[in-house]
Amino acid sequence: MQDYVAPIADYQFLLREVLGFDAAMADLGKDVDSDLATAVLQEAGKLCSQTLHPINRSGDEEGSRLVDGVVHVPAGFTEAYRTFAEGGWAALSAAPEHGGQGLPFILQLWLDEMMSAANLSFGLFPGLTRGATEAITAHASDELKAIWLPPLVSGEWMGAMALTEGGAGTDLALLKTRAQPNGDGSYAVTGQKIFISSGDHEMTPNIVHLVLARLPDAPAGVKGISLFLVPKYLPDDSGGFTVRNAMSAGALEKKMGIHAQPTCVMNYDGATGWLVGEPHRGLAAMFTMMNAERLMVGIQGLGIAGAAYQQAVAYAKDRLQGRSADGARGPVPIIEHADVRRMLLNVRAFVEAGRALAGWTALQHDRAHGHADAGERAKADALVALLTPVVKAAFTDFGFESAVQAQQVFGGHGYIREWGMEQYVRDARIAMIYEGTNGVQAMDLVGRKLSMAGGAVAQGFFDIVAADLADAARVDAATLVAQRTLAALDLLRDVTAGVQGGNIDSLGAAAVDYLRLFALVSFGWMWARMAAAAAQGDTPFHDAKVKVATYFAERVLPQAQGLAVQIKAGAAPLMALSTDAF
Amino acid sequence: MQDYVAPIADYQFLLREVLGFDAAMADLGKDVDSDLATAVLQEAGKLCSQTLHPINRSGDEEGSRLVDGVVHVPAGFTEAYRTFAEGGWAALSAAPEHGGQGLPFILQLWLDEMMSAANLSFGLFPGLTRGATEAITAHASDELKAIWLPPLVSGEWMGAMALTEGGAGTDLALLKTRAQPNGDGSYAVTGQKIFISSGDHEMTPNIVHLVLARLPDAPAGVKGISLFLVPKYLPDDSGGFTVRNAMSAGALEKKMGIHAQPTCVMNYDGATGWLVGEPHRGLAAMFTMMNAERLMVGIQGLGIAGAAYQQAVAYAKDRLQGRSADGARGPVPIIEHADVRRMLLNVRAFVEAGRALAGWTALQHDRAHGHADAGERAKADALVALLTPVVKAAFTDFGFESAVQAQQVFGGHGYIREWGMEQYVRDARIAMIYEGTNGVQAMDLVGRKLSMAGGAVAQGFFDIVAADLADAARVDAATLVAQRTLAALDLLRDVTAGVQGGNIDSLGAAAVDYLRLFALVSFGWMWARMAAAAAQGDTPFHDAKVKVATYFAERVLPQAQGLAVQIKAGAAPLMALSTDAF
Repeated sequence: MQDYVAPIADYQFLLREVLGFDAAMADLGKDVDSDLATAVLQEAGKLCSQTLHPINRSGDEEGSRLVDGVVHVPAGFTEAYRTFAEGGWAALSAAPEHGGQGLPFILQLWLDEMMSAANLSFGLFPGLTRGATEAITAHASDELKAIWLPPLVSGEWMGAMALTEGGAGTDLALLKTRAQPNGDGSYAVTGQKIFISSGDHEMTPNIVHLVLARLPDAPAGVKGISLFLVPKYLPDDSGGFTVRNAMSAGALEKKMGIHAQPTCVMNYDGATGWLVGEPHRGLAAMFTMMNAERLMVGIQGLGIAGAAYQQAVAYAKDRLQGRSADGARGPVPIIEHADVRRMLLNVRAFVEAGRALAGWTALQHDRAHGHADAGERAKADALVALLTPVVKAAFTDFGFESAVQAQQVFGGHGYIREWGMEQYVRDARIAMIYEGTNGVQAMDLVGRKLSMAGGAVAQGFFDIVAADLADAARVDAATLVAQRTLAALDLLRDVTAGVQGGNIDSLGAAAVDYLRLFALVSFGWMWARMAAAAAQGDTPFHDAKVKVATYFAERVLPQAQGLAVQIKAGAAPLMALSTDAF
Repeated sequence: MQDYVAPIADYQFLLREVLGFDAAMADLGKDVDSDLATAVLQEAGKLCSQTLHPINRSGDEEGSRLVDGVVHVPAGFTEAYRTFAEGGWAALSAAPEHGGQGLPFILQLWLDEMMSAANLSFGLFPGLTRGATEAITAHASDELKAIWLPPLVSGEWMGAMALTEGGAGTDLALLKTRAQPNGDGSYAVTGQKIFISSGDHEMTPNIVHLVLARLPDAPAGVKGISLFLVPKYLPDDSGGFTVRNAMSAGALEKKMGIHAQPTCVMNYDGATGWLVGEPHRGLAAMFTMMNAERLMVGIQGLGIAGAAYQQAVAYAKDRLQGRSADGARGPVPIIEHADVRRMLLNVRAFVEAGRALAGWTALQHDRAHGHADAGERAKADALVALLTPVVKAAFTDFGFESAVQAQQVFGGHGYIREWGMEQYVRDARIAMIYEGTNGVQAMDLVGRKLSMAGGAVAQGFFDIVAADLADAARVDAATLVAQRTLAALDLLRDVTAGVQGGNIDSLGAAAVDYLRLFALVSFGWMWARMAAAAAQGDTPFHDAKVKVATYFAERVLPQAQGLAVQIKAGAAPLMALSTDAF
């Protein structure tokens, strides 16, 4: 297996030539420029290449194990986590008032990309910790924050999110875990949660769980769910955290992939916890955390696709089979064969557009949190909300498809474990499911997000895209991709009108195809911007950008047409069959 | 996990109402009617449901193991194989002169579908044996046939096919295994083969390998490859087979899936073998076998998709999440949600059309082998040759995508091993790779098959499809799907003209998208025929056929448009990037 190479040149190109990073930071009064950002990304890249990637295959083979009630992570993971935390990576984008470095979110997302590329199972440890940190930051009392935030932000402890139960997954209204007041301000939490990533391990001296549960007087349904902070170790009398709470990993889930990650069945047996936020408002608090998590999960698809691309390119340059197109030479590296190039370019056309779109979204995220003007903040926040389900679902769908195509480049070797390609496929698969399945993301887009501000947010986004495409179309190198994407945008606007305000069946019938069409337009938008920017340069790097943009326009974007037709077919073809007839 | 239910009603519908089985058999003078065929399929279904399916999950968990040079298959496999062989299933479609039952190939393909659905790892044992049997039947001397065929046909022994080497996969020209004449008519075969399914085990007292190797005077390249019969046990002096040949499993491949199947690295250390067919003509002999194998591999995708569909439907009817479309009821079975139906219907729209297309192709296969008129035989043979790469590649691509979609219906549970859905995904993945990757199949279609008879075979097929669609369009229930498919056929004819006779790069650039478009048209053709036939009936079964046909037309077939655009883009977007720029 090849080393993982961090895509620093691509990040630099995006920061300096495409996304206007320096101006964006200046606009927010942030003392960060693209030189500093690049330096941070280079260091992050080293961590991922040198520390995380080397334990990715071994972690998959060894897996996490539960022995006599103790969770053992694979060799090297605890040491790697120590390196991660000591390097300050846990605190990268956290707020300085809680001990964070306050660096822009774009660096966090791209760090996430590299961590997912190098070792997805590992990346979930800090990823979920960050989710827990954000929920506590946004919703917990100052007293709770003072105790629990600093060690989470520093990476000394880790976090976990405990939502799902056996009978309550997508539909959290059904959850049964309950919380009884102890009379001293704390609660006794009782119930069983499943699929809890990083639920238990010995990598850090404490793990802070955020648990959804019902109070005794809770209304039924989602309006009766509260959020609780439930640590593995409770405070003792001497300022330490040595009192074992009444919670334990009942089992580790046996999964298709991410074997190194200890995904737990967690039992809370009257575990002591504290309410985070208002009673019965736990779901809102959980969504604070889940929105950022969803961007991160999208990035996981991107990361694995980029890593799989690197491996497949190296193999395709090395593997000799067949003859050259003119028949004169043979055997030749299979990268000379058109169909192998097709698979590689499909992956690359997604990865580089996704990386750009993630960057653009991250800049909006910082704007939403840091711009001086409240109107600008609200506008940026709405754009992030609109794009969050697109990033989550489309990146993980394309990410999985990319891993499958990169695996196919290897032929039979792709199916053999030691080559590592099949691990990418197995690991990538989970990202389409967790943090809300991709179907749920699509429903969020067509149901909730398209109707924000009476549809004005989506229209505003389409206007931004259209204006950029019109600009790009004036640059020769970008004309084709810009014009084709404008045509796809017309299709998207057209079907948007039909989808908005539909009933639940017609929304559900359109959702997944609509999200994919939305993503294709967004990728085309980024390719047009990248091609126009690349036309200003004259290196092989710039030339390649223009060529991949053209590939995207000619060989990927055309699926927009069929999607539009499918969306317009409406709900009838789906609902006609009676349940019995399935 | 639900029991596997054999799709007997669907087979009956196809035999009696769609494919005209009884007339086709009468035309060939075969004494088989749809009553007998149904009875055979019912018995085959019982075997698959009761004997093979119950050891599918356990076989995946246990896997095959190599211990002290002996290959151990998972518990129950040897007993299941005995039941299979004693039931006469090994000999189902083999020629009566070699001890076979001579039943029509459609029953063999559908048996293969059910075996793949119930237990793909198991199905490979008899599947590869049949491949070996066919190669021996077609190419070996009468002397070899007399010794080796009867125990293979009866299922007393099994077979294996040894083609691939570490440096020679798709490109067999590179293979290095050599065969030295022993002076007594036998040869000493020396070399290492990889990825050898059923390469070694103790399930039968002997295993007959067909091995590709080079004779000492062999020309370079594919024209210097010969085929050898190399048994695990050689004849002894007393008429038994007890002399261990110099061949052994060096290792079992560690794979993504089909864990129960012992996929071997095989070492031949001067193993004794006999030439099958002419010297240096081994590849042609191997292709005899591989064509039938390729249809079987396509059917594997179909089988797994059908099995995954059954599980997903059962789960979707059982799992309660969310509210009804009008908000009045909740939680409801998730099968009420439009997006869940979309996933289920995507799978079903493939499975039922694929089953029909496999049946049609199998009838042509019997016609090619059994019609009295040589011209009719040749015509049918050409149609089978045309459709073989389509069945192999499209069925396994759609099969894998189907397994992924069925898994998605399960949400997080789909990622957990015990539910069995992730095994379908892992097992289905191999079928896109082995027996020639799907990219190679697509090259076979656009390169070799489209140019058969100067393109007349493909045009003849399109004419058959067009005529059937015109007929179906006159039946109200089938009008929509027939007309839409006619439009897609126009796209296919249009791009066919552009693809035929292109150079190797333009063929390679078009191949995979072209094959998918070809498959969509073929599925639409089958749906139109099924919908027209179903319009004659008035049961819920018939009603469902019309509705799924409509779903296919409205929600699956539209991707034909984008594929046609992509094909027309030609090779330039793929070849523009220099190798260094990847």
